[in-house]
Amino acid sequence: MTTHVPPRFEQLGLIGCGLMGGSFALALKKAGLVKRVVGYSKSPSTTERARLMGVIDVEAPSALLAVSGADLVLVAVPVSATEATFNAIRHLVNKDTLIMDVGSTKREVIDAARRVLKDQVGVFVPAHPIAGKELSGVEHADADLYAGRQVILTPIERTLSAQLDKAQQVWTALGCDVRLMSPEAHDAAYAAVSHLPHMIAFALMNAITGQALGDDFLALAGPGFRDFTRIAASDPSVWRDILSSNREELLAQSRHFQRALRAFETAIAADNPEALEALIEYASRARSQWRMSSLKPQS
Amino acid sequence: MTTHVPPRFEQLGLIGCGLMGGSFALALKKAGLVKRVVGYSKSPSTTERARLMGVIDVEAPSALLAVSGADLVLVAVPVSATEATFNAIRHLVNKDTLIMDVGSTKREVIDAARRVLKDQVGVFVPAHPIAGKELSGVEHADADLYAGRQVILTPIERTLSAQLDKAQQVWTALGCDVRLMSPEAHDAAYAAVSHLPHMIAFALMNAITGQALGDDFLALAGPGFRDFTRIAASDPSVWRDILSSNREELLAQSRHFQRALRAFETAIAADNPEALEALIEYASRARSQWRMSSLKPQS
Repeated sequence: MTTHVPPRFEQLGLIGCGLMGGSFALALKKAGLVKRVVGYSKSPSTTERARLMGVIDVEAPSALLAVSGADLVLVAVPVSATEATFNAIRHLVNKDTLIMDVGSTKREVIDAARRVLKDQVGVFVPAHPIAGKELSGVEHADADLYAGRQVILTPIERTLSAQLDKAQQVWTALGCDVRLMSPEAHDAAYAAVSHLPHMIAFALMNAITGQALGDDFLALAGPGFRDFTRIAASDPSVWRDILSSNREELLAQSRHFQRALRAFETAIAADNPEALEALIEYASRARSQWRMSSLKPQS
Repeated sequence: MTTHVPPRFEQLGLIGCGLMGGSFALALKKAGLVKRVVGYSKSPSTTERARLMGVIDVEAPSALLAVSGADLVLVAVPVSATEATFNAIRHLVNKDTLIMDVGSTKREVIDAARRVLKDQVGVFVPAHPIAGKELSGVEHADADLYAGRQVILTPIERTLSAQLDKAQQVWTALGCDVRLMSPEAHDAAYAAVSHLPHMIAFALMNAITGQALGDDFLALAGPGFRDFTRIAASDPSVWRDILSSNREELLAQSRHFQRALRAFETAIAADNPEALEALIEYASRARSQWRMSSLKPQS
């Protein structure tokens, strides 16, 4: 139980009116934490759709104009577009602004913030809400996307504590479980539990469809395959950015995985059922004991 | 629409009263297709629990006695126990019996049937219902486990057509979508869409838990990880058997997969976002277009 009253904002400047940004705007509105949302997307038709859907109140013709008058800025663009976005808005950032992103990797984003925002980098609180859908676009924006989910904040030594407190309070008010981590620990952890599984799921799809009988194989797949490959349907440009921007950690995790896979192959090729069962037992016990961290539904 | 009246059986001899066998018995009873179920499990406490739950009507003290008087026999034991089971029952198999299994690999099971049943191998119809849960045991048996699912039958040249017809009719009557395939095509397909994904999911769990920070990583995992690794919680002895018994096809599919994974690593390491996005795009489109084959809910 927090005794803090959540901060209320005059204006959210939303840059990127897609699934993540649109859902944040809807959640803020639903919680009564913002007076108006001014939105900008690279594609004017997206911005217009966001306004028609009530996700934003005002369409801005540029990122800079979305930030004009905003005390809260959410940069919800692909990771590779972050630096250009900071460049577009930096002239209207002041010491009272709270800027956050929603990127799945943090070191590249923070490096871009340092380069562009320079002395004002302290107003930027790097954020990664652990939520999403395979379906992207404002038409799938959902006021409850973040409720009950974890949000990781990865402040750096220069992050201003006023901004960090406000960031924690906002996400908490949206029903999130907020954790603080270093950007390095964050990127290693998500390479292991998210980026590598995505790369594997993509690779498995390509391995199957690349075979002459691939379509026949797919026609026979069941519920296990359905769940295992669900993340393979994710958005290509978003995941290109995530996998690229977390390159080193991802490749390191892939090496761990391939070592573990070789242990299975060795036990199978050597016809050693005891060794194979021990490997499966170890994995099965770990997975059976694992529980996704999330808040209980509020009563 | 089939115009056949489904066959009704005097006695199901159920060998292995676990999730798969128990669910088959419950489904047959629910459909009114069997007068009595005589069950045997290696563990007497399982057999007793199956009777107390109403999954079977009579406990048999041996596999042979479960088959005594049975016109339908379901062998629902781990693949590695199939040959011993055939040996235990072969003296009471006659030309009118229909024997089926539920194993996830078919060539080893068929080889065992040829060796043991010899001239009577024609009464055995190898079957693989594409259904299951991570939770094993008779306490999870479910009369609707098979409804709306695919069942693959892999007859050989010596399979009797009377038995094959009956097998098709029984599974159809339980609401299944029945397909016929060669054992070889079956084993290759399931290596690709089921056995390899299981091996990968097991290996990923071991890769993470084998790292010093593995538990911290797991605490941060979200819904994508949850679904991707769901199958890693599967039963170790069941999956030891499946992976072992489909060794060659599985290792061949793993080589396809590792080639596809290397393509991702190469694009990432070379900092080639266009190549990376093309690889993801290919996978994402294939997964988005894929639909699990299953019957529509009956109206």
